[in-house]
Amino acid sequence: MTDVRVAGVGLTHFGEHPERTGRDLFAAASQRALADAGVPRADIEQLNYGNFMGALSEHQGHQGPLMAEAAGVDAPATRYESACASSGVAVREAVKDVRNGELDVALVGGAERMNNLGTAGSTEALAIAADDLYEVRAGMTFPAAYALMARAYFERYGGTREELAEIAVKNHDNALDNEHAQYQSAITVADALDAPTIAEPLGLFDACPITDGASAAVLVSDEYAEANDLDAPVAVTGTGQGGDRMALQDREYLARTPAAERAAEEAYADAGIGPQDVAVAEVHDCFTIAEVLALEALDFYAPGEAVGAAARGETTRGGDRPVNLSGGLKAKGHPVGATGASQLAELTRLLRGDHPNSDAVDGELGVAHNAGGTVASTTVHVLEVVA
Amino acid sequence: MTDVRVAGVGLTHFGEHPERTGRDLFAAASQRALADAGVPRADIEQLNYGNFMGALSEHQGHQGPLMAEAAGVDAPATRYESACASSGVAVREAVKDVRNGELDVALVGGAERMNNLGTAGSTEALAIAADDLYEVRAGMTFPAAYALMARAYFERYGGTREELAEIAVKNHDNALDNEHAQYQSAITVADALDAPTIAEPLGLFDACPITDGASAAVLVSDEYAEANDLDAPVAVTGTGQGGDRMALQDREYLARTPAAERAAEEAYADAGIGPQDVAVAEVHDCFTIAEVLALEALDFYAPGEAVGAAARGETTRGGDRPVNLSGGLKAKGHPVGATGASQLAELTRLLRGDHPNSDAVDGELGVAHNAGGTVASTTVHVLEVVA
Repeated sequence: MTDVRVAGVGLTHFGEHPERTGRDLFAAASQRALADAGVPRADIEQLNYGNFMGALSEHQGHQGPLMAEAAGVDAPATRYESACASSGVAVREAVKDVRNGELDVALVGGAERMNNLGTAGSTEALAIAADDLYEVRAGMTFPAAYALMARAYFERYGGTREELAEIAVKNHDNALDNEHAQYQSAITVADALDAPTIAEPLGLFDACPITDGASAAVLVSDEYAEANDLDAPVAVTGTGQGGDRMALQDREYLARTPAAERAAEEAYADAGIGPQDVAVAEVHDCFTIAEVLALEALDFYAPGEAVGAAARGETTRGGDRPVNLSGGLKAKGHPVGATGASQLAELTRLLRGDHPNSDAVDGELGVAHNAGGTVASTTVHVLEVVA
Repeated sequence: MTDVRVAGVGLTHFGEHPERTGRDLFAAASQRALADAGVPRADIEQLNYGNFMGALSEHQGHQGPLMAEAAGVDAPATRYESACASSGVAVREAVKDVRNGELDVALVGGAERMNNLGTAGSTEALAIAADDLYEVRAGMTFPAAYALMARAYFERYGGTREELAEIAVKNHDNALDNEHAQYQSAITVADALDAPTIAEPLGLFDACPITDGASAAVLVSDEYAEANDLDAPVAVTGTGQGGDRMALQDREYLARTPAAERAAEEAYADAGIGPQDVAVAEVHDCFTIAEVLALEALDFYAPGEAVGAAARGETTRGGDRPVNLSGGLKAKGHPVGATGASQLAELTRLLRGDHPNSDAVDGELGVAHNAGGTVASTTVHVLEVVA
């Protein structure tokens, strides 16, 4: 079985881009990934693309062939949709195809246009990631759902709003030098605690923003990288996917995320590593509490222990295992369909040394955790420097 | 590499089911597939699910985990969306996973709820499979798009409305004994020619109906089939996928479908067969002209030759190579996300001998052709009796 190399990555700025369509955003991200890889368009054999709400935000489905065209690629193209894990799944399927010899060169990525819907419109569109019959029609939105998860966590394990605020402060701090980030601005714990409550116990700064943006990466086989003399030191050495019941009411408990636990177990086994081997992680912090749940699902911490990790400095830029050095969804932004592949892009740069925060990474192995809905879908990928 | 066996298949009735949700439809189809396979739910390792317009018709995205739950399956689940080829792509990815040893047992399928949108609403929703900026905003709908393709064909190769009508008559005739079909009623060439014109040269009976329905199949490895003593004589021995430019204006010509040609070439090479080996085919006849284009892309006929195939009796139930013995999209119906996997279900039954039209099949090899949009996405699968 071949290693799957990340030959190149590309991102647009994440933020408010009312003048740019989804295809325009993906054209830019894919152009950057192809240039970074040094791979000619004619060599791309397949596009795996993630998008979540295009039917609502741009009256546009069937985005696979549309985005192949935007990327200037003449190859079969498929859209994957697993809510906020859409491009995580797109990456996973491409990783399997390359390592199984189905193809040598895949373009992966995703894009989302959200701000044109406005805050209320995008919140309503995001709600299609939850169970329409049993959650959305009862009035549930995602801030409320994650607030329920935070309350369940606090009740079961303890934890405070201050500890969650430290996560937001950390991720804003990490984004300061990231040119792709929506917010390159520091906040304080007091800022976070003083912000309006959106769903008790979560305030405005516990939530990621509404974001337009796109991400892309070029995945190639070892053989292709060698034959074409590519500088591609980072490989995807493990992939895992987990699922859970869709609606919170059908879960056994709300303070843990079994879909992510399963995805992590599978990815670790696939790579032949354990959580202790991980030097750096990008995790799905759509809300601050989601970062806590992710770190416990990844088995970096026992249940109940991760809520204080940022406050204790363990996951900050100077900590032993920094988390979301990109700024995370919180400060870098969360263009839903682009997020999974953007984690791959950020981790690749962090590991190969050309990320503004690369100097905070002490090691050669990172993990990306991408979650859909209230973690009913999760992918985990292991990236390693192999050459 | 293992063979990929079709262990079981299941369909709902295709038609108007205003009282049934998408999850209800898929629960029924998957239950039938699991029972047909004799595979316990606990053995299902993955769900690959196709859906097209759920965000618009049911305000429901993220249908992977929702449908796993509907099927009673505790496994990672992914939604694939390639317009009308959504479950064709879902099948293809599962076929690759099984034959590459990623897993032994996959549930595949799809569902669509459309009639609750009404005729105008569903036509508008279907339009998201075309290019919103360059086609839909100019007033294009799918009947108009396929009418353009029909006119281009007639101009380049010749052909008549009567010849197209013979395709509709054939497919209605094939559906007479198919309990799953939306229309179990015969029509005549005169009926078709006298029907209202929807977009010159296409009349009402050149178009498939608006349909609610679901499909499912259980795919297993050879090893699993053997170890569990399954009666699963049919295998998927070839898979192919092709892509094309999204908008008709960007195509070199409208009278051929290169995406389908590429998918067919790849699937034939994968199975080590040629078009002359194919005894029976299910093809994507969303309009009568689409069946013509499919038969030429599958290389059953040279360009210009397929339009008269039904009129000449070559593709009818008594012909040498019957096409759409299920009734096709025209008479069986076209619940968009369910169609690709339903072709797999129909072909499996036709080949193993328990379909009402099995006696029309003279051979042990069939092909399924599933197309998205104006054939910007296509999958082709080869099915063979191997035991």
